[in-house]
Amino acid sequence: MIETPDIERPSKELVAGLAKIGSATASGELSRLGIRDPHIRGLTPWTRGKAVVGPALTLQFMPKREDLYRVDEYADPEKQLHRHVLYHTQPGDIVVVDARGDMGSGVFGEMMLTYFKGRGGAGVVIDGCIRDYTHVQHLDLPLWLKGVTPNFHTQTNIVPFAVNVPIACSNVLVMPGDIIVADDDGVVVVPIKLAPELLRTASEHAEWEEFSRIRLAEGA
Amino acid sequence: MIETPDIERPSKELVAGLAKIGSATASGELSRLGIRDPHIRGLTPWTRGKAVVGPALTLQFMPKREDLYRVDEYADPEKQLHRHVLYHTQPGDIVVVDARGDMGSGVFGEMMLTYFKGRGGAGVVIDGCIRDYTHVQHLDLPLWLKGVTPNFHTQTNIVPFAVNVPIACSNVLVMPGDIIVADDDGVVVVPIKLAPELLRTASEHAEWEEFSRIRLAEGA
Amino acid sequence: MIETPDIERPSKELVAGLAKIGSATASGELSRLGIRDPHIRGLTPWTRGKAVVGPALTLQFMPKREDLYRVDEYADPEKQLHRHVLYHTQPGDIVVVDARGDMGSGVFGEMMLTYFKGRGGAGVVIDGCIRDYTHVQHLDLPLWLKGVTPNFHTQTNIVPFAVNVPIACSNVLVMPGDIIVADDDGVVVVPIKLAPELLRTASEHAEWEEFSRIRLAEGA
Amino acid sequence: MIETPDIERPSKELVAGLAKIGSATASGELSRLGIRDPHIRGLTPWTRGKAVVGPALTLQFMPKREDLYRVDEYADPEKQLHRHVLYHTQPGDIVVVDARGDMGSGVFGEMMLTYFKGRGGAGVVIDGCIRDYTHVQHLDLPLWLKGVTPNFHTQTNIVPFAVNVPIACSNVLVMPGDIIVADDDGVVVVPIKLAPELLRTASEHAEWEEFSRIRLAEGA
Amino acid sequence: MIETPDIERPSKELVAGLAKIGSATASGELSRLGIRDPHIRGLTPWTRGKAVVGPALTLQFMPKREDLYRVDEYADPEKQLHRHVLYHTQPGDIVVVDARGDMGSGVFGEMMLTYFKGRGGAGVVIDGCIRDYTHVQHLDLPLWLKGVTPNFHTQTNIVPFAVNVPIACSNVLVMPGDIIVADDDGVVVVPIKLAPELLRTASEHAEWEEFSRIRLAEGA
Amino acid sequence: MIETPDIERPSKELVAGLAKIGSATASGELSRLGIRDPHIRGLTPWTRGKAVVGPALTLQFMPKREDLYRVDEYADPEKQLHRHVLYHTQPGDIVVVDARGDMGSGVFGEMMLTYFKGRGGAGVVIDGCIRDYTHVQHLDLPLWLKGVTPNFHTQTNIVPFAVNVPIACSNVLVMPGDIIVADDDGVVVVPIKLAPELLRTASEHAEWEEFSRIRLAEGA
Repeated sequence: MIETPDIERPSKELVAGLAKIGSATASGELSRLGIRDPHIRGLTPWTRGKAVVGPALTLQFMPKREDLYRVDEYADPEKQLHRHVLYHTQPGDIVVVDARGDMGSGVFGEMMLTYFKGRGGAGVVIDGCIRDYTHVQHLDLPLWLKGVTPNFHTQTNIVPFAVNVPIACSNVLVMPGDIIVADDDGVVVVPIKLAPELLRTASEHAEWEEFSRIRLAEGA
Repeated sequence: MIETPDIERPSKELVAGLAKIGSATASGELSRLGIRDPHIRGLTPWTRGKAVVGPALTLQFMPKREDLYRVDEYADPEKQLHRHVLYHTQPGDIVVVDARGDMGSGVFGEMMLTYFKGRGGAGVVIDGCIRDYTHVQHLDLPLWLKGVTPNFHTQTNIVPFAVNVPIACSNVLVMPGDIIVADDDGVVVVPIKLAPELLRTASEHAEWEEFSRIRLAEGA
Repeated sequence: MIETPDIERPSKELVAGLAKIGSATASGELSRLGIRDPHIRGLTPWTRGKAVVGPALTLQFMPKREDLYRVDEYADPEKQLHRHVLYHTQPGDIVVVDARGDMGSGVFGEMMLTYFKGRGGAGVVIDGCIRDYTHVQHLDLPLWLKGVTPNFHTQTNIVPFAVNVPIACSNVLVMPGDIIVADDDGVVVVPIKLAPELLRTASEHAEWEEFSRIRLAEGA
Repeated sequence: MIETPDIERPSKELVAGLAKIGSATASGELSRLGIRDPHIRGLTPWTRGKAVVGPALTLQFMPKREDLYRVDEYADPEKQLHRHVLYHTQPGDIVVVDARGDMGSGVFGEMMLTYFKGRGGAGVVIDGCIRDYTHVQHLDLPLWLKGVTPNFHTQTNIVPFAVNVPIACSNVLVMPGDIIVADDDGVVVVPIKLAPELLRTASEHAEWEEFSRIRLAEGA
Repeated sequence: MIETPDIERPSKELVAGLAKIGSATASGELSRLGIRDPHIRGLTPWTRGKAVVGPALTLQFMPKREDLYRVDEYADPEKQLHRHVLYHTQPGDIVVVDARGDMGSGVFGEMMLTYFKGRGGAGVVIDGCIRDYTHVQHLDLPLWLKGVTPNFHTQTNIVPFAVNVPIACSNVLVMPGDIIVADDDGVVVVPIKLAPELLRTASEHAEWEEFSRIRLAEGA
Repeated sequence: MIETPDIERPSKELVAGLAKIGSATASGELSRLGIRDPHIRGLTPWTRGKAVVGPALTLQFMPKREDLYRVDEYADPEKQLHRHVLYHTQPGDIVVVDARGDMGSGVFGEMMLTYFKGRGGAGVVIDGCIRDYTHVQHLDLPLWLKGVTPNFHTQTNIVPFAVNVPIACSNVLVMPGDIIVADDDGVVVVPIKLAPELLRTASEHAEWEEFSRIRLAEGA
């Protein structure tokens, strides 16, 4: 039987606090805290208007090699690691996938995402694709993707390799349990250790921005 | 006078049968039938929510070379090959264009696409662009494209070269008369000889998926 | 104090005249006037259905070099050049930015674009990104962009360098004061000296197209 | 049995004349004759210091599709089209291959190139790779390539499809029988119909360049 | 103190046997054994004419994140993981690095490579760069690289992350202890379990090729 | 008559001092002085084994626009700006060109480079190409290039636009008069104001490296 590690989840207060700032404020403040570029580039919000904040479950794909990957594996779908990462889902979790930028692999399809949504999953971040978008769009599940494809997850170049390990998602390091802040501007990774300080400085910044917005509207 | 070959069209039953499966099922089953990757990558459904299935009329572009292409040709638009492929249109046909990935050539404009729609054309697949999208969007014609451009079809780098010949559309071989299955997940090419077997296996698979979906909804 | 040059603006008649043709006609006619490719490739209309015509304010970014760029500059935001280009805004102006194609720099955010809109700015063209899209989308300001990002404008690789100078926007030369014609097909740059002749030939062409459209609708 | 067309070869005088000018002069003069860009970009002279001029035998690859390509074909190597193009070799011929830019397919190996060299083949131009370079380098055969690979020609993505047909080599159209001028600056395609005029104007230009070179050396 | 795992080394007979076949034969035979594409693309033999075969020590880089990487680490160079992989060097070993394709990081410099060479290291394979090439070229150490750079290994985007773990080198999976076959055609990864069978089939193939070469030279 | 600005040249002592360190030391030390990445990526030393240090003459290309560029200009070659930058050449100068990465424009040919060499020019750095390499290679002039092409400098997409202005060479800012340090590892730009401090710290570092090298050779 396959055992994969779970993540440590942040306090509800931390997540709720960060949910009040957007990805733009998060990125700017992280920059001031020394993180040069926390933005996962190249992903598009597939579901405009959604904003989510939550801890990262991580899934790592690696290049497919035929001697290590056997189609027979599919006789027992329970061995498929892209399922196992979802088994850890708790309400508010965001699954982040290192799909190696591959545009010919649909990491999750309708059934997996229905399950994830049912478990309270809050969002999906992939530097690659999902499939079954015709049906998936009706799930109302926030998605940040490079694209969609009709291909299944191991059809061409990649295979799931590890769950809840450090990954590189489109050249940004994501540790399991880091906090994801995602909205229409994109996806920002908040290192869990910096999250409390980010919350403090960003809240101040948000107040200042609100003040400026009012002043601007008043004609200043 | 220019003569270009027509295509052989599949039976209505075959098209109707394949219309019941989506591109995701088609790609997965073709993979099991030995076709590694039937997905035409890099195209976006420009008209979300559309799904079409039909035989491929093909148009091949080649790099423009000034000694072979003369602007004077346009004194007689009837010599323009991008028109000739559309002259073959029968209801349900899908025109598939090898535009060499070029982003500076609008393969068809409003007038050509109005004509195509009027003849019963079911969809347009181009590894390149159309133009006049401001007007074309009102035609309600399903489009899978790399993009749009204001440029006309021979303005920069490419010229139409042949009609209803084998083409490479974004690195997938398309034979005239192959069946195209296209929806929000993308475009899949079904080799005509494999279509009957695909229909048979995919129908079984679709039933199984439907069953799984019900079970999943029931909490399994 | 920073002084940057203003642009010379075209006559209202010229702009109004060009506003009647679309980018597709503009590009085709410019091609006939000797401009091979006036289309700024790679930008997406972020606000579908908008069409604008107006003179170009230009802003040039250059690669960031730490000895020339100091974060301290931000003690005095008035020195930031991306503000200065907007200070020149007159109703109908379009700001065109050479952002070097950078996908990790949000050239303008909500506050700058609110200001621009308030001054009567007609549209924004960037071979790069804006930020704060969550809020900016409510401004109803026409945008042609490569993307959006949460990062601020000098966070990673580039810095604003000059205002109302000749720029290269995605490999098209734009002179300050050139006329921009932008719609759902994309952005076309009309060299100011060619604008009157373009207006004359394009108007004829537009009439012919209108005639053809009617004929086509009548079944010809 | 497979029959493929041969090419028409130019006069020895024409080839000998063009052999006196280099690719730089050829490209510049063709530009003045209306050919905007006759340079096949992206290829590297794998054999520095070689210069060849001769007619083009052409070979076209297409994307591999498993239902049309069977490994069993290799029970009879005589059916392999990449052999057939070489069967046409006459002394001085240059084989030009549209390998679709693929970096995982070695179009020819040592045995094919040994044969080609033995038949008097003058050079190889591929927008892709050869294999067996360890041995091939000793053949002293001029090569312009994108790279080398250990993979054989149909191992991954492409298959040979047609011989002595019009091809696109790295976005330049090459007609069978066109004249190739290749040296350390790269590969230029001379449309056969323009070759006589190119020879005339280039010879004049070459004289003028020689004169300038002498003057420059004299200190002017 | 840092402890990193060592690899299991193949028998001398296996390595010696594989050293008699080249990368081209290895790739072709692995393809027949079911490995679709064992070629690490995009690397150039920086030292023409070298051929090496040996087991893979692996080093994995990840994107740099400032909260996890501190420059202070360099107060104690002994913590730098790119050193630790070299500490495992035994004569004949080949170090294979997943440098994420980064062109701004010199993974090893003169001192590290002098040490590696001194320990009997047989070759270096990086999907990225080394630095100090001015001096390194005199070490006569076989190198397959994407390029060279003056930058040190953590100067810009990446940091060493793990030693002797599974890596992806330019989209090919490499397990620690796999056998590398590298020469002027490029680098091929031989999965260690397939190595004995590869040796058997490749030896047969090599004999057949030798026979063909003789026949070809005799005029057949 | 065209007048273009000259540059201010550094002291001979500064250049001589920096000539003793290589590009690797220069890049590492500049990193410690706050310049994140001074390496001009993507260029290859076309003349292996050369190392040069000297002040930068700069030439900026812009996208070609037919209404601003007339072939007639060439009736008077004296107006061509790519000549004017070379007119400023003093012994030891290095010409650095922003050619916009264009691979279809040979910025300089044999005659220009012969002139430059004759004036004492020390090296050429282009994020693009030269032409006439067949002849140029005999000039023994150090070259760092993206490639070579037979095309002349304004044949396709770009035209020279300004001399001795700030440029971006492959995404690195170069100010006229900055010091270029170039060798087999690549090209590093030393901001002129940082040059004295770089010289001081790099000299210390060089001594330490020399010491380490001796220790390493002694077996430490």
